[in-house]
Amino acid sequence: MEAMKSWLDIDRDSHFSIHNIPFGIVSTKAKSQPHPATAIGGYALDLQIFSQNNGFASLSIIQPHQAVFSQPTLNAFAALGRPMHRVVREYLQSVLLANGPFPQILRDNQILRNAALIPLKDCQTHLPLQIGDYTDFYAGLHHAYNVGVLFRGPQNALQPNYKHLPVGYHGRASSVVVSGTPIRRPNGQILSNPAAEPKQPVMSPSRKMDIELELGCFVCKPSALGEPVSIDDAPQHLFGVVLMNDWSARDIQAWEYVPLGPFNSKNFGTSISPWIVLMDALEPYAAVGIHNDVKLMPYLDEGDRKSHFAIDLSVTLTTATGNTSTISRTSAKNLLFSFPQMLAHHTIGGCPFNVGDLMGSGTISGETKAEKGCLLEQTENGKVEIELEGGERRKFLEDGDVVSITGCCGKQGALVGFGECTGRLEPAVQLKGSSPV
Amino acid sequence: MEAMKSWLDIDRDSHFSIHNIPFGIVSTKAKSQPHPATAIGGYALDLQIFSQNNGFASLSIIQPHQAVFSQPTLNAFAALGRPMHRVVREYLQSVLLANGPFPQILRDNQILRNAALIPLKDCQTHLPLQIGDYTDFYAGLHHAYNVGVLFRGPQNALQPNYKHLPVGYHGRASSVVVSGTPIRRPNGQILSNPAAEPKQPVMSPSRKMDIELELGCFVCKPSALGEPVSIDDAPQHLFGVVLMNDWSARDIQAWEYVPLGPFNSKNFGTSISPWIVLMDALEPYAAVGIHNDVKLMPYLDEGDRKSHFAIDLSVTLTTATGNTSTISRTSAKNLLFSFPQMLAHHTIGGCPFNVGDLMGSGTISGETKAEKGCLLEQTENGKVEIELEGGERRKFLEDGDVVSITGCCGKQGALVGFGECTGRLEPAVQLKGSSPV
Repeated sequence: MEAMKSWLDIDRDSHFSIHNIPFGIVSTKAKSQPHPATAIGGYALDLQIFSQNNGFASLSIIQPHQAVFSQPTLNAFAALGRPMHRVVREYLQSVLLANGPFPQILRDNQILRNAALIPLKDCQTHLPLQIGDYTDFYAGLHHAYNVGVLFRGPQNALQPNYKHLPVGYHGRASSVVVSGTPIRRPNGQILSNPAAEPKQPVMSPSRKMDIELELGCFVCKPSALGEPVSIDDAPQHLFGVVLMNDWSARDIQAWEYVPLGPFNSKNFGTSISPWIVLMDALEPYAAVGIHNDVKLMPYLDEGDRKSHFAIDLSVTLTTATGNTSTISRTSAKNLLFSFPQMLAHHTIGGCPFNVGDLMGSGTISGETKAEKGCLLEQTENGKVEIELEGGERRKFLEDGDVVSITGCCGKQGALVGFGECTGRLEPAVQLKGSSPV
Repeated sequence: MEAMKSWLDIDRDSHFSIHNIPFGIVSTKAKSQPHPATAIGGYALDLQIFSQNNGFASLSIIQPHQAVFSQPTLNAFAALGRPMHRVVREYLQSVLLANGPFPQILRDNQILRNAALIPLKDCQTHLPLQIGDYTDFYAGLHHAYNVGVLFRGPQNALQPNYKHLPVGYHGRASSVVVSGTPIRRPNGQILSNPAAEPKQPVMSPSRKMDIELELGCFVCKPSALGEPVSIDDAPQHLFGVVLMNDWSARDIQAWEYVPLGPFNSKNFGTSISPWIVLMDALEPYAAVGIHNDVKLMPYLDEGDRKSHFAIDLSVTLTTATGNTSTISRTSAKNLLFSFPQMLAHHTIGGCPFNVGDLMGSGTISGETKAEKGCLLEQTENGKVEIELEGGERRKFLEDGDVVSITGCCGKQGALVGFGECTGRLEPAVQLKGSSPV
């Protein structure tokens, strides 16, 4: 694939090259109502201003739908469907292209350039869609195996169902927040001494605060109650991908999760990156995931379709003293099931979807230690410490720690990246009657 | 409590006496846009027509807010808060009261009576609120114990955490439907022979279709990320109560639920009754629940507060041949944790709530066989059959079965009831490659 070049000056390291054209929701000091934008280099292109000033004059097919660019979320744009996302993205690329067909739209229109191209540092980003339902899967096989070994040993590490279906649980949509939102350490019931009988919980700020490196995928096409989405149709239901940090309180989880699954250990905050990278933008980086040695049932069988993505992922931890360490590097290929498979499984019994519903991949870990996507794995549930820059060490997160996930595909000068999914851990609320951390 | 009497002719067996005044969303042939109403005897009082025709002329405090009665859901009305719900309910009671203070508003206003009082049989009911998030708890102690005995024996029937906190899981908001919506038997992965090793699932329509008798409670006050709702404040966050049938596919559940909880076994449909009975209407029937012999942590301690309700519940099953059998009768008192306790627990770690969020109680079973709230318990997971009227028998539900839950408080002539939560089980979608049922 030959790199395209824009007339706009774009840093070669920018995640938002002309090959990307992600969609998000921003506000500025001058315009406090959140509204859609795309990111290009160091700028947000304000799509509300762009559309209201004839920016789409040369794309007649979008003109009856331009109200979608004045909405406070991307749900209406998403609902236009993948073919329309494609033409809008390709049109914006052609508007931004050096020697492109539409120089009069933006390049030579200094008034619109001044109004619609806003430095990213002057934009606040917001949750890109209103999320109806959020589901978190568990498709990172190496993660599931590593965690299984910790709790059940290598012989029984994976549950019998694990390779037959994408295991998942319903998450809490209300606690999904945009990158940059501070995350408060949760209070909750934990066992100070898990081995003691009878088991006696105490109320405490979580002592085992963790992160989970994940991808999230938004749905852009509704499906009705009782109507499964087939594996062949599933890709047309997917809007785009974000980075996700599924913050987790391991000690609250250990006590609460039997028999109905994770609950308060997960619902105090799930961070996502603000810019949705469209499925079309990821297409050139399509890849196969982890080979599944089980013969899948027809409703999950994708054949040879490459429905994973070669996204390079990394996680940094910046401590309160300002030291930044990379604590994990891996690839989004490390998944056993793809988003189309997740959607096909989720709907096989008739569960309905709305535009804006979100699916998380589950924690993505590679096979080696440096590729593990959460601290639970890296520290063997707090048994060993990891070493950070500046001589600091961690078993789990401390208050003031900032965790940032980044992800990117492609080559310098033509990167398709996600920017950053970041959050700072704040101290717990002080409760009466809770034990000290 | 002395019974009030209305000038409107109300059947003594009506669930919708003047003591009730529940809120719902209806549409009619003449007015197809869903809008708010209350149920009174055999009528819906159309609150949009009522408010637009000076029905609230003698309640000045609601006048700035009357747009809430033209919304397609009750979210805006709910968001006005419990004090406002109380004055609106009491005002409507006074408008409907024989010898009440406002005869001119409705009783003597034949034009408005003709326009606003619509026979319930001519109304279609709709989902009363837009549900942001739905959580299902497991607070029916007898149910949890009975199910625990089936799977783990009497010694380990209850998990160690069970009495310390209200165990729950995040459900699927998109699959909550209003009473009357047909429910399709889900297809899914099940084990034909659970004892065989290695475990080999097949794709099949569920062979173990079940119901769960529950209450649902809607939240009317938002709470922010990171901000717990205290046990003392929790009652002010509750809007009202509905009946709920948490349809369940036991065989899909058994295979999928380890380790992250129920998923496709629950998300194909959850039915709720259409009329929300306000917390104030239930107040006269406040009761204590099941005694908890564990000392609760302060954040869950309600002291002597009666925060359960003496609602008589029953479940009928009508087969395709038309025979109707009552398969369970019990009381809503059979819960170990109350809705305020559920909300306090749900938010202790900082999980945020929105107006319209829904909490389910978990299956409500009494101590005796006739009081069991699901077929799993009644048939010991399909080991014994229950006998129905007309000589029919069931282990689990058959296609065409109609299940109806009813619930009511109080005495004839002054009933505070929920009407009915009903649904008919439809045959599964035919998939390629699925085994016969």
